[in-house]
Amino acid sequence: MKQAIFKAACLAALFFSPFVTSAQTISDSLLIRKIYHEALSNRTGYEQLRYLSNEIGGRLSGSPEAEKAVNYTKAEMDKMGLDRVYLQEVMVPHWVRGEKEVGKMVGKKGKKVEVPVCALGGSIGTGKKGITAEIIEVKSLEEVAKLGKDKVSGKIIFFNRPMEPSHVNAFHAYGGAVDQRGRGAFEAAKYGAVAVIVRSMNLALDDFPHTGAMRYEDGITKIPAASISTNGAELLSHRLKDEPGLQFYLKQNPQTLPDARSYNVIGEIKGSENPDEIIVVGGHLDSWDLGDGSHDDGAGCVQAIEVLRIMKALNIKPKRTIRAVMFMNEENGVRGGLKYAEEAKNKNENHVAAIESDAGGFTPRGFGISGLPKHVKAIQQWKLLLEPYGLHDIGPGYGGVDINPLGKNSKETALIGLEPDSQRYFEVHHAASDTFDKINQRELALGAASMAALTYLLSEYGL
Amino acid sequence: MKQAIFKAACLAALFFSPFVTSAQTISDSLLIRKIYHEALSNRTGYEQLRYLSNEIGGRLSGSPEAEKAVNYTKAEMDKMGLDRVYLQEVMVPHWVRGEKEVGKMVGKKGKKVEVPVCALGGSIGTGKKGITAEIIEVKSLEEVAKLGKDKVSGKIIFFNRPMEPSHVNAFHAYGGAVDQRGRGAFEAAKYGAVAVIVRSMNLALDDFPHTGAMRYEDGITKIPAASISTNGAELLSHRLKDEPGLQFYLKQNPQTLPDARSYNVIGEIKGSENPDEIIVVGGHLDSWDLGDGSHDDGAGCVQAIEVLRIMKALNIKPKRTIRAVMFMNEENGVRGGLKYAEEAKNKNENHVAAIESDAGGFTPRGFGISGLPKHVKAIQQWKLLLEPYGLHDIGPGYGGVDINPLGKNSKETALIGLEPDSQRYFEVHHAASDTFDKINQRELALGAASMAALTYLLSEYGL
Repeated sequence: MKQAIFKAACLAALFFSPFVTSAQTISDSLLIRKIYHEALSNRTGYEQLRYLSNEIGGRLSGSPEAEKAVNYTKAEMDKMGLDRVYLQEVMVPHWVRGEKEVGKMVGKKGKKVEVPVCALGGSIGTGKKGITAEIIEVKSLEEVAKLGKDKVSGKIIFFNRPMEPSHVNAFHAYGGAVDQRGRGAFEAAKYGAVAVIVRSMNLALDDFPHTGAMRYEDGITKIPAASISTNGAELLSHRLKDEPGLQFYLKQNPQTLPDARSYNVIGEIKGSENPDEIIVVGGHLDSWDLGDGSHDDGAGCVQAIEVLRIMKALNIKPKRTIRAVMFMNEENGVRGGLKYAEEAKNKNENHVAAIESDAGGFTPRGFGISGLPKHVKAIQQWKLLLEPYGLHDIGPGYGGVDINPLGKNSKETALIGLEPDSQRYFEVHHAASDTFDKINQRELALGAASMAALTYLLSEYGL
Repeated sequence: MKQAIFKAACLAALFFSPFVTSAQTISDSLLIRKIYHEALSNRTGYEQLRYLSNEIGGRLSGSPEAEKAVNYTKAEMDKMGLDRVYLQEVMVPHWVRGEKEVGKMVGKKGKKVEVPVCALGGSIGTGKKGITAEIIEVKSLEEVAKLGKDKVSGKIIFFNRPMEPSHVNAFHAYGGAVDQRGRGAFEAAKYGAVAVIVRSMNLALDDFPHTGAMRYEDGITKIPAASISTNGAELLSHRLKDEPGLQFYLKQNPQTLPDARSYNVIGEIKGSENPDEIIVVGGHLDSWDLGDGSHDDGAGCVQAIEVLRIMKALNIKPKRTIRAVMFMNEENGVRGGLKYAEEAKNKNENHVAAIESDAGGFTPRGFGISGLPKHVKAIQQWKLLLEPYGLHDIGPGYGGVDINPLGKNSKETALIGLEPDSQRYFEVHHAASDTFDKINQRELALGAASMAALTYLLSEYGL
């Protein structure tokens, strides 16, 4: 059966594309089949993710869990017989959530109904007594400006524009709604709001509030920002229709502590022919604190380690250097990504490409490429080798938050994002529902195999 | 954002395929975008599946639940303002599981360890006292023949060849292992075995035994056939290595009752120009009894109804007749599929094509086509209209169990199977784990939209 599938893949390649049927292509096709075989037949990455998720848990930058994750992934790579495993020190923001947040609708007669809320990452607290104020629903940042100081001052602003469900790619829906989370607080504070409550970035209707980064702007009063679950948002919106003037009680007391020492974790196989040409494969080791960060982004980390493990298991000696990087602090600062790029620049390192997996451990559908047109063209020439594995969407796209700074060092570095199926991602993204039971072992392995296949081609041929 | 996506789709079409850029193609592209918009923005299908799964539950042929499902889906379609909704009577096998099965490893000193088992569909019982016998592990039907009567007679045969995990498409792994379930009992009975235990058709390691159809052959003694969970199979295999001669106790008492009266449920929109040319969209309404049949195949049923709902919602007047068919008895007899084909033949109906969704309600990846080369070619010409929605795998393949008999009426009927992502299917297939919480609303809706898009094209242009 295996043989049959390989033959089918080769035949497909031969049939559809006479111009790539060299002996080299056939040998590449064979090797890629071996990569998938190895990935699907071995549970190491899945077991590593189980440990990261179930034994360590959520790994917010600066937390003891983040430190444990650094030590664990380094120890795992130390066992692999790599050419080099090392830590790259980086100071990271250290925000802590504190006691569990409380959000309540407060009716005219004092009737209180609790709804699920959580502080957005980076938010300030309300003080121990919490804040009670009238709450106003808006659908956009622009609507706040339109309401103006008269109507906004002293109020809590409730941003309730849902992610648009008609987008086929869920990331497009995210992109169309996430300004409320990122910018809502300071845009509302400009007009005197005392707090903001933001509908969770979630396409499903459920009871999980989703956190995520928000930011303040210099010169604008900092006000508390919280997220409310999608079911909570629906309920609140209905109540507001029945009872304009409804009040809301919010209590949360997160704190920003001094920056903490942390690390990127790096493992490397030296290139046999062009050791100075580097290919990065990576994910981010930190996560939000509510879930255990299985999909975001424990998956990307173990997939990056899997790329190296697969190379060793198949005795592949890559021509170029392959470096698995577990970046620290993607979620609230990108300090790890910035640090990695800074050191690469200082050392005048030559990065051919960087592949990031930070969109969940779901069935891979392709790669999004941010780079020069020649990069896109070169990678698209490998389509026929990758399509038998369901990797059809190979074209211009976004690389990843952690590798983005690397692209600023040189335009000659292609930034490549693994693109898994997006449908389920925002149900777990940044929420307590991001747990290991949502991981499918085969989907996770296919993602690792896809990264390994592309890494192999990049290491053989460069760009 | 929506506009942007549509533009991107059109641009892609224009760029990649100058020969399909007629005004017609652009208008089809627009309409398909509307179909997806409608499917993703409306939760009717999802709510119908919730009812079928949570309120009715597992719907084995001949059961009260199957009857409720017939009434429910007919009532749902009656509300839709279709041109015709009707039942098609069919007599179905009526197999009942009876009391919960018991499987135990029985060690030399009488130590018993229970493992999760369930009767395979159609199996006979062991009698109330159960069967205790020495159990022998084999990896294939051929191995039983090789062992021969001397070694097999009086024993329980344990078929333990796992699904091969290295297949990228999980259905290939299923195809490579399922002979053990279907043929294991009679092949072992030929050599005097007293029962068979078959490793569940599941790529994951867990505690659910998976049922599914098995068959007997005339002239060969019928022996009881049960399935054991994958974890149970691993445990049993390990124990057998430590203790050759291990005995196994199996008790199950399913019964085959007289055939029961049941129905295919059919709803129809008459074609405006070619009403005599019929396009079937379907799934099967029966399911196994262990879970609630959400993925297998409640999903396919509500998707078929969705195709009609979407047509009505968008005020599409299809040129050809579209018929949603909820087939009865796919799992253990295919009587509904046979009946539908028989009546179609008797009435000399002209079926252009039939699309079946019976591979789970997961993100659709394409369509497998069983038909004449001209059918495949015609459908592949629509690739550029469908690829923006992730439907890349459009080519020769398998239509579906229920529509298969229709293909025997005429070679001019194209049989088309919706092909969703296959990675998670065999975790739930035929097991107690096939429940509504495994359904993702968006993935389900995308499957319905994909069927609706292809149905629309078939109804406009025929084949």
